[in-house]
Amino acid sequence: MRRSALITEVVVYNIESALNAQRGGADRVELCDNPGGGGTTPSSGTIAVVREVLDISLFVMIRPREGDFCYSDLEFEAMKGDIARAKELGADGVVFGILSPDGTMDRERNRELIALARPLKVTAHRAFDMTRNPTEALESCIEVGFDRILTSGQQEDAQQGIPLISTLVQQANDRIAIMAGCGVHEGTVEEIIKKTGVNEIHLSAETTRPSRMRYRNGQISGMGSTAGREYLIDTASASRVKEIRNRGSRV
Amino acid sequence: MRRSALITEVVVYNIESALNAQRGGADRVELCDNPGGGGTTPSSGTIAVVREVLDISLFVMIRPREGDFCYSDLEFEAMKGDIARAKELGADGVVFGILSPDGTMDRERNRELIALARPLKVTAHRAFDMTRNPTEALESCIEVGFDRILTSGQQEDAQQGIPLISTLVQQANDRIAIMAGCGVHEGTVEEIIKKTGVNEIHLSAETTRPSRMRYRNGQISGMGSTAGREYLIDTASASRVKEIRNRGSRV
Repeated sequence: MRRSALITEVVVYNIESALNAQRGGADRVELCDNPGGGGTTPSSGTIAVVREVLDISLFVMIRPREGDFCYSDLEFEAMKGDIARAKELGADGVVFGILSPDGTMDRERNRELIALARPLKVTAHRAFDMTRNPTEALESCIEVGFDRILTSGQQEDAQQGIPLISTLVQQANDRIAIMAGCGVHEGTVEEIIKKTGVNEIHLSAETTRPSRMRYRNGQISGMGSTAGREYLIDTASASRVKEIRNRGSRV
Repeated sequence: MRRSALITEVVVYNIESALNAQRGGADRVELCDNPGGGGTTPSSGTIAVVREVLDISLFVMIRPREGDFCYSDLEFEAMKGDIARAKELGADGVVFGILSPDGTMDRERNRELIALARPLKVTAHRAFDMTRNPTEALESCIEVGFDRILTSGQQEDAQQGIPLISTLVQQANDRIAIMAGCGVHEGTVEEIIKKTGVNEIHLSAETTRPSRMRYRNGQISGMGSTAGREYLIDTASASRVKEIRNRGSRV
């Protein structure tokens, strides 16, 4: 059912991963901080450097803290400031999603952030997957003006979410892009694309590299990362990005 | 041995926690993102809002990713950009630490960042605890111009690190401030202060509050935080800050 070339977005949590994603042939990078918390807004300095080294499209996560997607007035102010900053720094898009306590997309606030973000592209992230009714949430995303939705089909990963993602692609009917994400890797990418008809995939292609530290302190654990992983740095793998992209493009 | 009033610094990972720290009587907030990764640089928008709502001192973490403290040239560029941004936004201090692969403090790079940060205050964070020799690292911190060191005495927490923190306070001899951190809470604060002679403590005073979401999706776990904790928001507790501060001040 796909008519366009596959678009591959790689979520990255540091500068090195952004470069690896580009080397692996990604079309777009989604830049975040805080991998353990599911992604939060990266720092101004990191956005600036990533913009400098990337020729491909750069989307910036706008999420003021981990946890739920229901934000205080002050958190909403921080999101506005971060969208303005991402725009100043040359991002191509921003990624966010605000929910109302009743489990719907918060129309008013999402609309306000989209207006502020223009002319940048705007993606609704997986807050969508926490809504009470995906059919209703999809129409809400279209109504307020999101360009795309990142979704796992309201399941733990996109493979489990295939039935709903497929339904969403049909419901969207090109009024908004549907991007499948969470658990898109070498073993699932073909099935997900084939069965859902998405034109866009979102993946992390994670790997680790050893720290460049020669002296290693064994006394302390869990200080800079998960316990026992002080001297392993998480990065995106260029070769994995390439492989997943190639497999997806063959579908 | 303490001659000055106790200074209480609260590390916070969101705007709400910063306000709670202030309400609890903290003297200073250390603002970070990424609690699970041990703290990384917060977003520009969050720094701006926290500055707006805090009357107390605001220090900003400058750390471009989780993991070790040995950074690439590009990561170093990001840190410089973030220091400049924190200064523009009215921070009172910045917090960082760069190590060389041999386990020493990286004199040249730390010195360069300190020069850029002035007139802001500069804290060397717990990268210090990963150095090969704390006596040597302390002299290096003084030499390059750090105002203070946050340390757990190169142990898992400050209580275990009491012997070394005590030695560091004596070695420092008021040439640099020593702040005890990691595991400073109601049960340990008095012992740590009494036995080490520190004038400054660093604590998180963590608690959780329930999410304001009325609709809760039980299908997905671990999306916005640790699995099973979607609807618990981590915050600093004003009453815990107050209690820890009171106990510490009585020593």
